[in-house]
Order: sequence, then structure tokens, then C-alpha cells
Amino acid sequence: MKKVVLFGEIMLRLAPNGYYRFFQNDQMQATFGGAEANVAVSLANFGYRPVYVTKLPEHAIGQAAVSSLRSFGVDTDSIVRGGHRVGIYYMEKGASQRGSVCIYDRDHSSIKESVPADFDWKSIMKGADWFHFTGITPALGHNLVRTCLDACKAAHAAGATVSCDLNYRSKLWSREDARAAMTDLCKFVDVCISNEEDAKDVFGIEAAGSYIGKGKLDREGYKSVASQLTEKFGFKKVAFTLRSSFSASDNDWAGMLYNGKDCFFSPTHHLHIVDRVGGGDSFGAGLIYALTQGYDDQKAINFAVAASALKHSIEGDFNRVTVEEVQKLAGGDSSGRVSR
Amino acid sequence: MKKVVLFGEIMLRLAPNGYYRFFQNDQMQATFGGAEANVAVSLANFGYRPVYVTKLPEHAIGQAAVSSLRSFGVDTDSIVRGGHRVGIYYMEKGASQRGSVCIYDRDHSSIKESVPADFDWKSIMKGADWFHFTGITPALGHNLVRTCLDACKAAHAAGATVSCDLNYRSKLWSREDARAAMTDLCKFVDVCISNEEDAKDVFGIEAAGSYIGKGKLDREGYKSVASQLTEKFGFKKVAFTLRSSFSASDNDWAGMLYNGKDCFFSPTHHLHIVDRVGGGDSFGAGLIYALTQGYDDQKAINFAVAASALKHSIEGDFNRVTVEEVQKLAGGDSSGRVSR
Amino acid sequence: MKKVVLFGEIMLRLAPNGYYRFFQNDQMQATFGGAEANVAVSLANFGYRPVYVTKLPEHAIGQAAVSSLRSFGVDTDSIVRGGHRVGIYYMEKGASQRGSVCIYDRDHSSIKESVPADFDWKSIMKGADWFHFTGITPALGHNLVRTCLDACKAAHAAGATVSCDLNYRSKLWSREDARAAMTDLCKFVDVCISNEEDAKDVFGIEAAGSYIGKGKLDREGYKSVASQLTEKFGFKKVAFTLRSSFSASDNDWAGMLYNGKDCFFSPTHHLHIVDRVGGGDSFGAGLIYALTQGYDDQKAINFAVAASALKHSIEGDFNRVTVEEVQKLAGGDSSGRVSR
Amino acid sequence: MKKVVLFGEIMLRLAPNGYYRFFQNDQMQATFGGAEANVAVSLANFGYRPVYVTKLPEHAIGQAAVSSLRSFGVDTDSIVRGGHRVGIYYMEKGASQRGSVCIYDRDHSSIKESVPADFDWKSIMKGADWFHFTGITPALGHNLVRTCLDACKAAHAAGATVSCDLNYRSKLWSREDARAAMTDLCKFVDVCISNEEDAKDVFGIEAAGSYIGKGKLDREGYKSVASQLTEKFGFKKVAFTLRSSFSASDNDWAGMLYNGKDCFFSPTHHLHIVDRVGGGDSFGAGLIYALTQGYDDQKAINFAVAASALKHSIEGDFNRVTVEEVQKLAGGDSSGRVSR
Amino acid sequence: MKKVVLFGEIMLRLAPNGYYRFFQNDQMQATFGGAEANVAVSLANFGYRPVYVTKLPEHAIGQAAVSSLRSFGVDTDSIVRGGHRVGIYYMEKGASQRGSVCIYDRDHSSIKESVPADFDWKSIMKGADWFHFTGITPALGHNLVRTCLDACKAAHAAGATVSCDLNYRSKLWSREDARAAMTDLCKFVDVCISNEEDAKDVFGIEAAGSYIGKGKLDREGYKSVASQLTEKFGFKKVAFTLRSSFSASDNDWAGMLYNGKDCFFSPTHHLHIVDRVGGGDSFGAGLIYALTQGYDDQKAINFAVAASALKHSIEGDFNRVTVEEVQKLAGGDSSGRVSR
Amino acid sequence: MKKVVLFGEIMLRLAPNGYYRFFQNDQMQATFGGAEANVAVSLANFGYRPVYVTKLPEHAIGQAAVSSLRSFGVDTDSIVRGGHRVGIYYMEKGASQRGSVCIYDRDHSSIKESVPADFDWKSIMKGADWFHFTGITPALGHNLVRTCLDACKAAHAAGATVSCDLNYRSKLWSREDARAAMTDLCKFVDVCISNEEDAKDVFGIEAAGSYIGKGKLDREGYKSVASQLTEKFGFKKVAFTLRSSFSASDNDWAGMLYNGKDCFFSPTHHLHIVDRVGGGDSFGAGLIYALTQGYDDQKAINFAVAASALKHSIEGDFNRVTVEEVQKLAGGDSSGRVSR
Repeated sequence: MKKVVLFGEIMLRLAPNGYYRFFQNDQMQATFGGAEANVAVSLANFGYRPVYVTKLPEHAIGQAAVSSLRSFGVDTDSIVRGGHRVGIYYMEKGASQRGSVCIYDRDHSSIKESVPADFDWKSIMKGADWFHFTGITPALGHNLVRTCLDACKAAHAAGATVSCDLNYRSKLWSREDARAAMTDLCKFVDVCISNEEDAKDVFGIEAAGSYIGKGKLDREGYKSVASQLTEKFGFKKVAFTLRSSFSASDNDWAGMLYNGKDCFFSPTHHLHIVDRVGGGDSFGAGLIYALTQGYDDQKAINFAVAASALKHSIEGDFNRVTVEEVQKLAGGDSSGRVSR
Repeated sequence: MKKVVLFGEIMLRLAPNGYYRFFQNDQMQATFGGAEANVAVSLANFGYRPVYVTKLPEHAIGQAAVSSLRSFGVDTDSIVRGGHRVGIYYMEKGASQRGSVCIYDRDHSSIKESVPADFDWKSIMKGADWFHFTGITPALGHNLVRTCLDACKAAHAAGATVSCDLNYRSKLWSREDARAAMTDLCKFVDVCISNEEDAKDVFGIEAAGSYIGKGKLDREGYKSVASQLTEKFGFKKVAFTLRSSFSASDNDWAGMLYNGKDCFFSPTHHLHIVDRVGGGDSFGAGLIYALTQGYDDQKAINFAVAASALKHSIEGDFNRVTVEEVQKLAGGDSSGRVSR
Repeated sequence: MKKVVLFGEIMLRLAPNGYYRFFQNDQMQATFGGAEANVAVSLANFGYRPVYVTKLPEHAIGQAAVSSLRSFGVDTDSIVRGGHRVGIYYMEKGASQRGSVCIYDRDHSSIKESVPADFDWKSIMKGADWFHFTGITPALGHNLVRTCLDACKAAHAAGATVSCDLNYRSKLWSREDARAAMTDLCKFVDVCISNEEDAKDVFGIEAAGSYIGKGKLDREGYKSVASQLTEKFGFKKVAFTLRSSFSASDNDWAGMLYNGKDCFFSPTHHLHIVDRVGGGDSFGAGLIYALTQGYDDQKAINFAVAASALKHSIEGDFNRVTVEEVQKLAGGDSSGRVSR
Repeated sequence: MKKVVLFGEIMLRLAPNGYYRFFQNDQMQATFGGAEANVAVSLANFGYRPVYVTKLPEHAIGQAAVSSLRSFGVDTDSIVRGGHRVGIYYMEKGASQRGSVCIYDRDHSSIKESVPADFDWKSIMKGADWFHFTGITPALGHNLVRTCLDACKAAHAAGATVSCDLNYRSKLWSREDARAAMTDLCKFVDVCISNEEDAKDVFGIEAAGSYIGKGKLDREGYKSVASQLTEKFGFKKVAFTLRSSFSASDNDWAGMLYNGKDCFFSPTHHLHIVDRVGGGDSFGAGLIYALTQGYDDQKAINFAVAASALKHSIEGDFNRVTVEEVQKLAGGDSSGRVSR
Repeated sequence: MKKVVLFGEIMLRLAPNGYYRFFQNDQMQATFGGAEANVAVSLANFGYRPVYVTKLPEHAIGQAAVSSLRSFGVDTDSIVRGGHRVGIYYMEKGASQRGSVCIYDRDHSSIKESVPADFDWKSIMKGADWFHFTGITPALGHNLVRTCLDACKAAHAAGATVSCDLNYRSKLWSREDARAAMTDLCKFVDVCISNEEDAKDVFGIEAAGSYIGKGKLDREGYKSVASQLTEKFGFKKVAFTLRSSFSASDNDWAGMLYNGKDCFFSPTHHLHIVDRVGGGDSFGAGLIYALTQGYDDQKAINFAVAASALKHSIEGDFNRVTVEEVQKLAGGDSSGRVSR
Repeated sequence: MKKVVLFGEIMLRLAPNGYYRFFQNDQMQATFGGAEANVAVSLANFGYRPVYVTKLPEHAIGQAAVSSLRSFGVDTDSIVRGGHRVGIYYMEKGASQRGSVCIYDRDHSSIKESVPADFDWKSIMKGADWFHFTGITPALGHNLVRTCLDACKAAHAAGATVSCDLNYRSKLWSREDARAAMTDLCKFVDVCISNEEDAKDVFGIEAAGSYIGKGKLDREGYKSVASQLTEKFGFKKVAFTLRSSFSASDNDWAGMLYNGKDCFFSPTHHLHIVDRVGGGDSFGAGLIYALTQGYDDQKAINFAVAASALKHSIEGDFNRVTVEEVQKLAGGDSSGRVSR
């Protein structure tokens, strides 16, 4: 079993039930999620005991976030407790032509107000095989950029592979701030996960010929982005998720893995979407699992894409699937027949 | 902000949750809806403060209907209170080959038993820019035909534009009664909203070459119906909703606006249906908004169709969308991507 | 009204709500279902008063199973009460690429531990027109094979037609045990219901050229299986359900009826699936209804397929549709329009 | 097993969940209830197969009322189908100082618009041991008074005992109309069930010294009312429920049975109320069961009071308790310990 | 109809359903509440159209707070829109020995970050009869103290009566800060609402002989506190709520009104608590209504206490009762009988 | 932090919501519970990381039981996986005079069919401070008696204190079998937890003068039972729960601790019951915590009783309270006031 360490923010996710718009009735699903936490839970469901690092208040809401992770078998012993609030995001699920809506209320959360000294990375990274974070974590503020750098260095020192999902969020920081911070951080990154938008937003690297709004994707274009990224940062691998949005209910979903030389494309899955939030994170988790298990590149991208295809059929941020379920789909059985 | 007045019946809508058939368990969604009320709520969500007129009992159920409208910002001060019951409709949502089922229990409602003297139209219409009603309101009985005529005359006197959605309901009145009453009323109507079935049922005007059961639509046929209607009643505009029903889950949806000379067709939206009740009403609301805002005909029909396309993704009778959301879809972004 | 007798196990069905995975929250739908019980309820909804035979404990859970059947008008007076437990199946609904999951916990149920002497078949079958069971019932154990034989003989003696849905369940018995028992039982069977997998699993009879995983179906292949079955057991009719699984959300659904000479294929319905469990049972019920009503073979298979197409749009095991609703779809109206 | 026939109205009961006020959210419990239907269900839970007579529309809502009764084992074969609506009552549960609220919407229901010729009492009463109705049924209109008389006469002719719960409802008829009709009907009644208010409202017979508002009850006063009633109508038995209302959450509950000579008082139960609607009906059912089982007067009143005490702990109109559960409480075990 | 203006914070209230502890399942009731908003809603339910002033973000969550108030008929036109977040409080309902728990997450809310210039008090107060705020509003920060002063001065200038509920919250400010600010503000206050704890916490004024933990209350002690407050600030009236907490489920509830000379005590109501949050606010609303209606002091305190007693039987912050319901209880009918 | 090991069965608990009777609607709360698991969760909530030992199937239902424990921080690494089923108990909550009902369906569960060789007690008990089991575990069968003996011996060898809650279940074994097995096991027990019924049922030791049905308790009687038990088995401590059942809604609750010489009685708490299942287990957990923390006897029994008093206010088997919450009540604050 590999030791994977993750660092980021876990938020309270408040979502109306079903296809209700915000406050259409007086009930909300109250669960937890966040980019790296989603990866951690996914890895735990694959049988790992990932170490998730964040800062959460001591009160019952902070404790609920811990308990939520703990129920999946995530190791929560390195979570720092303190501060005053759990960040929140309000999530309204779309359907048909109506897109999903996220409203963030994450300012002043415990993790956002944390300082580098809160985290003892040397001890956390002891024996770590892998460290994963996303571009959302440094986007939380200058302190978090520094903490991410500390974590990357400690991971490096411990001999762990470092992966980063670029995950650009324009509401959190400007393109300029993102580029500056991510350029520093990517020096430590071995495996870069992205989609074409993030590569452009963060680093200004573009795939010629693709047009996202229309869902048209161009294989050569993706390869070009991946090789530009690799040249710039020396990544060992670059993985892309390839989404074609026909509507909030129907997407095509695929992925690409570039190993510095060749591009491996997964098959495309036509998705009837139950909940697309966390789709990218489940891709990251699938990729980390596949690479730590020594899968070859084609098998790795197929596994990562199958894992994340399944995520779209599951409510909430977390990808509640086992390795066997992913392998069944990655192996080509997409019939959705009843397993009795 | 334009003053729009609406008149009709608002009913209690009792619907099993999800895809349950009637009484499959012991819970029902209990909300409110009705053709003109749906238009009013939609306009309120577009930022207007529409004046909705009806009659409702004084008890807690009548009050709940008022509160429901009031929460959206509809002006309920002209609602007359009295009588004994709120009309009810039982609504069971269909899926796939199984169509939705409506069972009406609206006899003897307060509005149905109202008399013309209940309503002081002169004062209600003061300063009105627009008056809207549907063919359902006069179908409630002879008194309601007279009240509608009173309302139309007062609207006319106030200089308001009058729109009417033909909305033929065979359970409420015969084709003959409908034709007689609607012929009288349409003399006051400037903007006629319909679909091909209603034009045929109410006025015997047919679109050659269309066959609804198959969902095949013929542009010229629609134009022919619109021009026949215009000739007969002198409408300034005729708008049609164009629905192709593949199943209870999948429809194509478009619209047409005829200005007495030219026909403007909207793009067609392929709908994954959440709830199709109120689809036509949300089209009417979109049209009224677009026309009161001075949109040109093409932009107006696109807005009306986009508004009503979105309605199909929303639970309940009411169209819970903002102008910005409609404009985004009307502007061509139907990808349903997450708005963060 | 025809008297139809059915024999089998009714289980408690525990299912997470919506698309939740098992125990994603703390609520479960707790309803009842089972192959023959599903047929019985479907026939009751068609206006019959079918006699359902099983054994259930005397406690409140057993009583709830009885009450559930009774609410539809199923005659529960021949249900034997005793034993200790109601069998359970945990049911998780799939979506998109994620298939549904059934976990059975039916060992030691009252019916499984019943003995032949528990049932007075002579009196139960008095006046019976039809007797139906499925391959699941004898799969419950040696005693149940004998009880099924007793029932078949009594049905035969009473002049009732006997139908059997092969329904092979590999978790309940081996192919060898199934073949031995079903070979004995099929001697009494007049109408055999199956799909290509069951015919192969139970009797080793194969349809050349079909490949289920891909959903490719071959008409001649099915005819070949049907005629092989007929030759072997002298069935008067053989009916097949033809399912093409594109995903857990989308299937094509059709059927075939073979009368010893000709094959009649129904139209194919493209299904947006709400709940596919009980789809085959609803087909059986449709067929039994159609044949007891004297429909010709084409009309019979169309009715059976329409009935079971509708089942896929309904939550739970039971097919909650009327004859009128089935006839509407069987007559070609699959538009799913609102019935007002 | 005794054959008990009941006649009355069964309504749709729409109730907010828990302690919500009307429309505090968008969900309602939708169940069925009505005075005589409640008695029927209670008797069915005691193991009888009571015949419940009413008129209900043919549509799905009418059918749901039938199914609801059928699930308990009530014989619904004598229910006449026709008319247009199921009566409704909106029910809001009170707590502490806030009393429950009932809003009736039962005008124009199928049973209210039924005519005497709808019911074939001679055939319904064949073999009947008991006929029960309440004062609510004749209160539905002149036709219903006549139908009740028909039913009473047929019951008399069949040798059945007739019981009536006076159940005065001031919203349905005036005291004068009630007195006239009930005076005619009571000539056929053997067992009269009432409380002190009803006796006064319907017949002007008062219990000196009691004061309901304060919950003060006077044994001699009740005896005096019972003997006055007996003198006037020749009842064989008069039974009273004795309720002391401290708040909507806490009541004392007892009963009295007068046999024309002696009064038998039950013990008093202090109730923590879950749902008090149907409390009186469950008392009637308990009494009918006890008397048809030949219990002596003290045991009969104890059983009836225990049955109805338990009702107050159960949601909905129907008393979901077995004879064994009632006997346990009637036998003195009110500890509410866990039955494992 | 009197014009009452209120100023304060309305928060999102997130509460587990029933008696669940935080996150015991994945659903939360999501409603709105806040001290002055609760008073506003209560007054709206009494038939007033109170003007509620606050600042809320423009997004859907802010809009939902507005809609919630609007549904009751509160005038929301003076609510300033801007800022980033709606304050939140997590509310877990207690039972028996387990007390309710509130966790506040209200820092950085739009209203907390508002500045005095956001509010045009002169125009808001035009024609106002009454202005009400609580000690929670100035506790939100120095800017809010100034804004409250501005509001008080404008109210004074408009000739409005000013009331203040001291409502000390130790998590929001220190006793010292509270005393300083409230001493300034109370110079403008005519009617002071408090309980003995607040009087002591804010002003150090104590009632000798009372001991809250035990729920023992001393009439003379309360009078002494009231007269000390009056002497210090020149209040015209001082009103106290008197709560005896036996457990989270059972309280006694009463009130006192001091007019500078005499003390009027209400009767004591023994409460079975459904939800006690907002109990004090409903008292304030009752008092404001009674005083604006010109009730005498005894009738006023009885009305205020009856209103707030009823609040304890209602879920959520808002008191959903009518004047008629309050008057019924204030008039002595606490029996909680069914109103049919 | 002390290492506490627990051994027993964890079951799926299926309970209708609120006060519904079984299958009153189609939803059930599906949670987990079991005597020793309840103790484990309670200790985890007190900050320990207890090691819970059982056997559970590998499928999703077994996994859900593991996840449920894991979410609280229980160490589940020693749970053996295998076998076929998770035991079930159906739980219906009582109210007022209607007692709760438990129906067990636990035969053939994985733990019941486990063999002694499944558990490596030597390694499990390494470093253990305490081992706890209840009389339910050996009641599961002869193999379990042997496994309990193995566990006790290993605990003894590791120097752990052993506690046992007698917990007699007549549905699981006879008094004779219980006496034989428990006599063997109690030789290893240091701390015996019981109530007077269990002491009598298992060992025939009676408390003179107590009469449970009436809830009358006699202090001297309890002391006599405790000293008889101590004499017989050499227990270091004997603890009793003292329950007086007035109804299913209201109990008095207290406890006694006997140290071989003196009896310490806790104060009595009057409980408004939310859910009484697990009340005894939460007492056991409180006692184990108090004794491992070195509390004196009076403080220990007060803590255990306060912990279990709070349990009665919480839904489900598990006691979701912190040490601070227990100490607040144990310290005398039972007012149930809001903690803000």
C-alpha cells in the first residue's frame, strides 16, 4: 500500500436536493468536499490509507468534516485543528440547458487563515510515496503558497512523487498571481493534471484548433499543450481530461496521458450525468492509483478516465467506487447491467 | 419597470416526489401553480412587479397561495379574498414512454365561483402597460367570460397591450363554447400565443402537413395558421410554441413569432425534461418581457424560447430563472457548464 | 376475470433513494418485491384478483409483505404464515456506466425453509385458469423443487395453463442443478418465458450470432433458441425479452413470441430507465394477461413489451400501470405527452 | 369472525410533516381517513374483514383511497365508484398551547353527491352482524340522511346491531338539522357513542357540572347524560369518551359505558399525544370489537379506551394496533417498555 | 396599520432535522432567521407590513433571504444589496437534558461589513411609528453601533417610538463594549425588552434572589431590575421575559411589563417545546403589536407572552401565528383542542 | 489514552422514521448498532480510539458497518471479514402507552457463524487496558461462548480489566444456557454491569421489594443483589442502571455503583425520551471511561448516568456526546438551555 499525502481545503457543500434551485424548499444536502479531499477519499475507496492535511476548527462542524473523511478510511491524524470556520460552497445541480451553479463562501476559513508554521511537513511526509495538491490550495492566499512550497520541498526530500492539478479558479486569484505562484510550485511537480482551459488560464499555453464551448476537441492540439508544459517545467507526465459538454445532462468524457514522448488517449464515455462536481478530482485519483500501481500509460489513462466517468454517476463530491468497479468499466463493460 | 396585470386561477398542485406514481408513498409536493400565475412569477423573476388578480379563500390554504406568489415579488394586493376552496390539480410526472398525468379538482374554487363585481378593473388597470390572460380563465364559466371581457375593456381603456394564450382545455369546456367566448375576447387581444393544437381546437384553424403525434413540424404550416389567426382577429403578433415529443423525457422545443408579415423561428433546443408543466407559460412570460423591453422579433422569440427551454429543467410550475440566465442561453451557450 | 395462481418468494427490498450508493445516507426505501409477486401485482393492476402463494413469518415484517400485496388487490388468503424471516435484497440503482447492484440476503427465509406439506395445492388450484412460477422458486432448495412439482401437477389437474420464466440465478444454484430441476418442471409448462442468457445457462441452448455485452440482437438466433426449447419440452409458446443495454440509463427493449411455428417481434422501445428491476416480470404479466384475454400473438407480444417498457419508468419492483395505459403505448403512442 | 358493515366518507388527509404549520415547506403527508373508515381499518387490524361502503371517483385518487383500505384487509367490494372528487381535509398538528387545525374541503365529493339508489343495502347487509355509522354521514346532506335510513333499515332487517357515534360537526349542519335527522336515525340505533359535547349539541342533553374547557369531568354528570339518551331512544348501550385537554401535547383519556343500568368507567390514561385525530373512532372500533366478542361491560370499556389511548401515539387517522397490543394495555401494562 | 421599522442581521439557519445532532445524516433544514427579522415576520403575520432593513449580498443566497421575508409580507425594499456573504448559524435542537447548540459563522457578513453610509435612514423612517432593534446589531462592530445611532436619531426625528431588546451575546462583544455602546443607544430607547441575565450582563443591574439555573423567579427582583433600568435610561416601559428551564423539552414561560410605576405579570404557560429559538423575539413582536394597538399594560403583557408561548410550538425562528390565535390563548384557552 | 477492546455483533438497524409503525410508509432509517459497538462509539466520542472486534461480510453492507464505526474514530482494523450476512434488527419507536418493538433477524450473521480460530486475541489484546463484552455475544452460540472465553483469557494475560454487561436476551438463549455460560465467563470479569432483571434472569439473584412494572425501586434491594453477585464472582465493581418506566415517553433514570463495600447512587434524571435503545450501553461506556480516568466511585456513577441520560435524547443506537457535555450534566446543569 502506497502512502499518498494530500493538502488542501475541505468545505461544507450545501446543495438543494434533486434538481431544485437554491432554496426551492427548506432542505439541503449538507456534505463535504474539496479538490484534494475528493482525491483522498477516492484513493481510500481504492484501498489506500491516504493522509489528508488541512486545518479545521475544533467545533462540531469542523469535527463533521473530519468524521466524513474518517468514514472512508482517510488518515485524518495530521489535520490541524483551530481557526473559526469551515469554508462553504453552495452547489445547485443543473439539468439540460441549465448549468450547475456554485457560490463560494470560503473566505476566512481555518485553512485560508492558516500559516506555514501550522504544519510539520517533515514528519507528515515521512515515508510518503506521493504528494498531491491542486492549484486551488495556493490560490487561497500568500501563506498558502508558502505552505505548498514547504510541502513540496518536504515531499521532495522524502523522495515522494509530486502531482498537481492546475485547477484554475478565477474567483480566487488573478491569472497573473496564479502564473507566478504556479510557476514556482511546478518546479517540484512530476505529474501535471490539467485541462486545456487551465493550461491557458494559468500559463497562457494554448491548444490551437480546439473550441471548448462547442465541445470540439483536437488530439494534436492537446499534445501540443502537453509538450509545451513539459518543456517548460520538466514534468514526467501530463494528463488531460477531455470534456465535451452537450448539456448539463450529457457530456462526453475522455482523457489523455503524455509521457514526454507519446500521447495515450482513453476511449470516450458518453455520460448521463448525476453529479459532475469532483469529476476532475476522481480523474486525478485514478491516475495516482494507476501510476503508483505501475500500470502502463494506456492502462493508466483508461483507468483514470473510467474512474472519473463513474464519478459522474454518483451524488456528491466523493467518488464512491472500488478498484474492481473501475476495472470493469476500464475493461470495456459499459453496459450498466445489473450486478446480482 | 413595466406594469403587467394578469388574471386567472392559481391552484394547489399536489405531486408525488420524483417519478413516483400517485400515492406510491405517503408524501406529496404541495406547491402552487396556474397558467397566469406562472407567467406572473416568471415576470417577477425577470425583475418586474406584476399584479396578479384572482380570488382566493381567506383560510390558511388561500393564504399559502398568496404567500407563495409574494415570495417572488408578485404584487398580490389586488387578489380578492373569499369563497371556500383553492382549486387543486394532482400532477404525476411521466418518464420515458409513460406520460405525465394531470387530474383536476378545480370545480367550485373561489375564482370559479367569483362574479364580475368582485373585481374593480378600473383601479387595477390604472397605469398598466400590459394585460395577460389565457383561455383557461374564461373556460371556468360564464361569469369568468364576462369578467375577462371587463378586464380586457379596462386594459384597453388604460392603453395596455393585451395578450392571450389560447390554452384550450377540453375538460373545462367544449370546442363550441370555447370558440364563442374566445372570439369575443380575441377582439381585444394584441398578442396571441398558441400552439397548433389550440388554434385548431378553438378556432378550427389548421396547419396543413403537421402531425403532432410524430413530432414532425412544418414551418410553412405554422405560418399559415398564424396568418389565418391574424386575418381573423387583427392580432399584432402571433407566437407559437413548437414541441416535438419523443418521449416524456426528451422533447425538442422551439418557437415562432409572426408579426403580421414575417415569421421568426428560434433555434431548437433538445430538452432533457425535469418538469414540463408551465413550459408554455414560461414562453408567454419570456415573450411579454422581450416585447415590453423592445427586443426585435428574432431576439424576442429567441428569448421566449430560451426562457421556456430552461423552465423544462426546473421542478414545479414556476420558472425560476433570471434574465441573465435566459440571455446566456438565448445567446447560444447551451453547454450547461458549471457557473462558479 | 381469470384466476391466476402464482408461487414464489416475496422479499423486502432495501434501496437507497435516488442515485445514492448503499448507505450514502441513513435512509432506505423499504418496499417488497419478488419475481412472481411482481407478476401478481401487475395482473392485479390489470383488474385480475391473482392468488399469490408463499410462506411468510407472522411478525410485523411478514405482515407488511402481505399488506403490500393486498393493497393492490392480490388475494393473499393462501399465503402460509410461519418461519422466521422475510428474505431481503439490497438494491442500488445504477446510472450511466455504473450498473445497478443487488445483494441478496434471502437464505433461511420462511419460504426457503418451507416444506411441501405447507401448501394445499389441490384447494389452491380449484378453478384456476393459469399457474405461473419462475426458475427462482425451485432454485431456493430441494424442498422448493418438490413443492413446484406439486403445484404444477395440481395446476395440470385443474386444467390450468402453466407458465414459467426461466430466470436463472447463478448465486442460488449451479447450472447443473438448474438444468436437472427445470427439465423436470418444464414438462408441465405450456408457456416458457426467457431471454437468451437464461436459455443458455439453464439448458445450454444458444442463439448463434448474438452478443449480449454489445446489445447486438439477431432475430434468427432467437427463433432458433425458441424452436430448440419447443422441441425439447413441447412448449405451446416461447416468449423472449430482448434487451440492448447501452448504459444503466438507456436500453432498447423489445420482445418476441414464438408459437411453435412463427416468430412475432414487437416494436423496439428506447427506454430512459427509472428502475429496471422487475422488467422481465412485468413482461410475463403482460403476456399472461394478453393470452388469457385471447389476444392474437402479435398483439400479445406488443402488449407484453409495452407493459414492461412502462415498468422501466416506475420506481420499485411492481408495475403500477393499467390496461388502458399499456394499450395506449402498445397502440403506438409513445410520445409521453401529458394526459390532462 | 363477525361481519361489520360501515358507511361514510373517506377523505384525502393532507398534513404538513411533524409540527410544521400549513405550507411551512413544500411537502405534505397525503393519507386517507374518515370517521367510519377509521373504525373499519381498526377492526381489520383486530382481525375482522369489515365491509366499508362509500362512493369514490374512478380516477387514480379514488383508487388510492380504495387501495389504502384494501392494504389493511378491509373489504372494499361494496364501494360504489363514480362522481368527481375525493373530499379533502387539511390537517395541521398542534403542540403545547397551539391546537391542531382542520380545514375541510369536502363539498361536492362523490359520496356527498351520491343518491340513495347508488347503494344496494339489502345485498350489502346480507349476513351482517353489526352496522356502524356516525353523525358525520347524514350531515353530508339530505340524500345521505335517506341513505343512512335505508342502511339502518336493511341492517335491522338482517338482524344486525346498529351503532352510531353522534360526532356533531357544526361546519356541516346546524344543531336543528342534526337533531331532526339524528332523532329519526337513532330509532334504529342500539349502541350510541358520544361525548358530552355531542349529546348537548345534537340533542340538547347536558351533563350538569362538567366544564370541558377546564377538562374537569364529573362521573355523575355523564351517567345522567347517558340515562337521558337511553330514555329518549331506547339504546342498549351508551358509551362516552372522556377527554381532559391540558394542552395539544397532553391529555387525559378515559371512557364510560352505560348499559341502561350501571356505568362502567375505565382507568384514565395520561397521553403524550402523537396524533389525536381518529381517537374517538378508535374508541368506537374497540367497543364494537369488544361487544362482538362478548366482553363484559367493564372489560369492554377498558378495551375500547386502551385501543383509543394507543391511537393517540400513532400518526394518521388509522389505529394501527393489534388485539394483543390493546389487551396488554387494557391489562394494565402502560409502562411502554421495549418489546424485544 | 402602523409602520414599524426594524434593523439587524438575518442569517441562514442550518439545522439538522428533528432531534438529530449535527451531521447525523446528510440533510439540513435551511431557513432564515435573526432577532429583528423574527420580530418583523411576526408583525407581518399580525397584519402589519413592517419595513426590515439590513444588507445582503446580491447572489442567490442573499436573494433567498429576501424572498423568505417577502413571502410573509415584510417590506424588503429598503434592504441594501452588496457585500459577499450571508451570515450563518448552525442550530441543533436539544431535548430533555441535552440543551440546544448554536454555532455562529456570521463574521464578514454583508451587514457586519456595512458602513453607516449604506443606509438612508431619513427616507426609511419617513412616517414610521416605531423602530425596533436589539443588542445584537450594535454588537456586530463599531460601524454598526454608529449605524444604530443614526437609525435611532432618524426614528426620533420622525416621531417614532424606539424599542430595544438588550439581547446580550458574549461571543460577539465583551460586557464592557456592550455597556458602552448600549448606554449610548439606550438614551433613544422608549421601550426596553430584556431578561434578568441581559440586564446584568449589559448594565450590571441585578435582581436579588433570583437563581436562573434553578428556574426560580422572584417577582420583586424583576421589579427592582426594571425600576433600576428605568431610572438609569428613562424608559417608558420595561418588559421582561421570565423563563424557567426544567429541561430542553419543558419550560415555564411568563412575562412582566413595568410602566415606570407598576409591574404587570402575565399568567405562566407550561411549554412542551418544539423550537425555542426566536422565543424572545416573538415576545418583542407581541409587545410592539399590543402597544401600537393601544392595549392596556396587563392585556399587552398577556398578548406578548401568549404570542411567544405559541412560538415555542413552531419550527424555525419565525413565529407563524395570527392575532386571532394569540388572542385565543391570551384569552385563557390553552387546551390545545382541535380547531375544525 | 487507554486502549479498550470490545467484542460483539454490530447489526443493521432498520427503523421507521419518527413515530411511524413498521412500514407505515416506504422509508426506513438504516443505521448500525449493537451492544458493544455502541460502547465503542461512545468511548470514541469521549476521545478514545477503542478497538472493536467482530466479523462482517466483505460486501457493501458489511463495509457500511465498518465505515459507520470508522467515522467516529473506532479502530476497525481487527474486524474479521467473511461470512454472508449482517444481522438485522427492526426497531419501531414507541410513544406514550405504546412501547417500542424490536424484531431481530440476526441468525446466520457472519459473527454468529464465526469460529474461535477467526480471532487472534493475543495480538488484539496487546497493550489493552480494558476488555468489554456483554451477555449478548456468548448468547449467539456455543462457538461464541468459546470465543468470549478466549478473549477473556487473552485480556487477563495482557493485564486488562474485563467488564461485562449481563444483558440477558430471552430470544437468544434459555436462562439455563445463559447461567452456565455466564458463570464460566464471569470468572474473568472485574466489573459487572447489570440491572435487576438481568441479575435474576441469568443468575437467579433477586432484589427483594422491587417491582419493575411499577417502576418502584428499592435501594437496599439493589445493594443486596450487588453484594450477592460480588460474593459469587468476586467482581471488583458492580454497576446497576435503575429505570422507572412511566410510559414510552417518560422514564426516570439513575444508577448505582457498588465497590464491594459501599453503594453509590447517582441523582435521578427525568427523561423525555427521544430514543432509549442503547441507553444501557452508553451507561457502560460512561462507566468504563470514568473508571479508566480514575474518577472516584460517586463521580464515576454520576458520569455514567449522565452519559446515558443524554443518550435517551439522541436518535439511533450510538451516544453522540462529548466528555464536556456529560460533565456539564453530571455537574448538575440539567436545564437544557441553549449553548450559544
